[in-house]
Amino acid sequence: MPAAPKTLEDLFHETLKDIYYAEKAILKALPKMAKKAESEELRSAFETHRDETETQVDRLEEIFRTIGKPARGKTCDAIIGLVDEAKEVMEDFKESEALDAGLLASAQAVEHYEISRYGTLKAWAEKLGMTDAVTLLDTTLKEEKRTDELLTRLAEDSLNQKAA
Amino acid sequence: MPAAPKTLEDLFHETLKDIYYAEKAILKALPKMAKKAESEELRSAFETHRDETETQVDRLEEIFRTIGKPARGKTCDAIIGLVDEAKEVMEDFKESEALDAGLLASAQAVEHYEISRYGTLKAWAEKLGMTDAVTLLDTTLKEEKRTDELLTRLAEDSLNQKAA
Repeated sequence: MPAAPKTLEDLFHETLKDIYYAEKAILKALPKMAKKAESEELRSAFETHRDETETQVDRLEEIFRTIGKPARGKTCDAIIGLVDEAKEVMEDFKESEALDAGLLASAQAVEHYEISRYGTLKAWAEKLGMTDAVTLLDTTLKEEKRTDELLTRLAEDSLNQKAA
Repeated sequence: MPAAPKTLEDLFHETLKDIYYAEKAILKALPKMAKKAESEELRSAFETHRDETETQVDRLEEIFRTIGKPARGKTCDAIIGLVDEAKEVMEDFKESEALDAGLLASAQAVEHYEISRYGTLKAWAEKLGMTDAVTLLDTTLKEEKRTDELLTRLAEDSLNQKAA
């Protein structure tokens, strides 16, 4: 039994630690995915998103500061699973014509995880009246959605090129 | 080294097995989440989605039939991670006013995983000229998106009620 009943603030803090851990895992995974990508465009998209992810980590650290907590992650089982799936595709489909399609699918699954987490965190921050956090979370949420749209476009291009 | 190079058909089949495993895991998790939900509305949403999930499993089995493969799942690390996170929230936030908010966040993370998987599978099925599969995947994709929107509404209601 915890000493005091847990609140929405606690849930916000726990989820912030979860996505902080996730972003750091993504930061490590993206260069590996970039290295495996067949198409120059996909490699470049992964590299750009890696840089964006660094800024997203900075934003999370700013939010930790606003709530007066140390920036610390906690194991996020979901991202571990998502990254493991990406590794499996890289292994199983290396030298396959479908490798990029598989990499894109893995990356989009990761984007969707982030979109759901940032959407939730933003709603909670609004409720908790954390104006600065809302702005920071919204900026990242929009970036993640743009990245997902870009990946969708690249996926379509990649499928069409294979057919050509 | 595989005997023959892997194709987009292989990737489609592997990903079909992945989401089939995931849907079955969700089928088991939803009743547990419904039982824990504080609000009647959230419990009922989880129960309805459980029934929907059964139909989604049937649709996947139909797709397995159209490609002449046995309906068989393969361990999906992502869903295991997502369900583990839901369990953690149920445990850590039991008797907390934020329990429903946490359950809703977990459920939305799961929905987003499914949305990304079904979106990808549908794009591949289109490319592969699998007309029946496209229709089946699109029906489920729309259901998942509707469920995600419903959960967003319930999350807003739940936060507003706690504030009232």
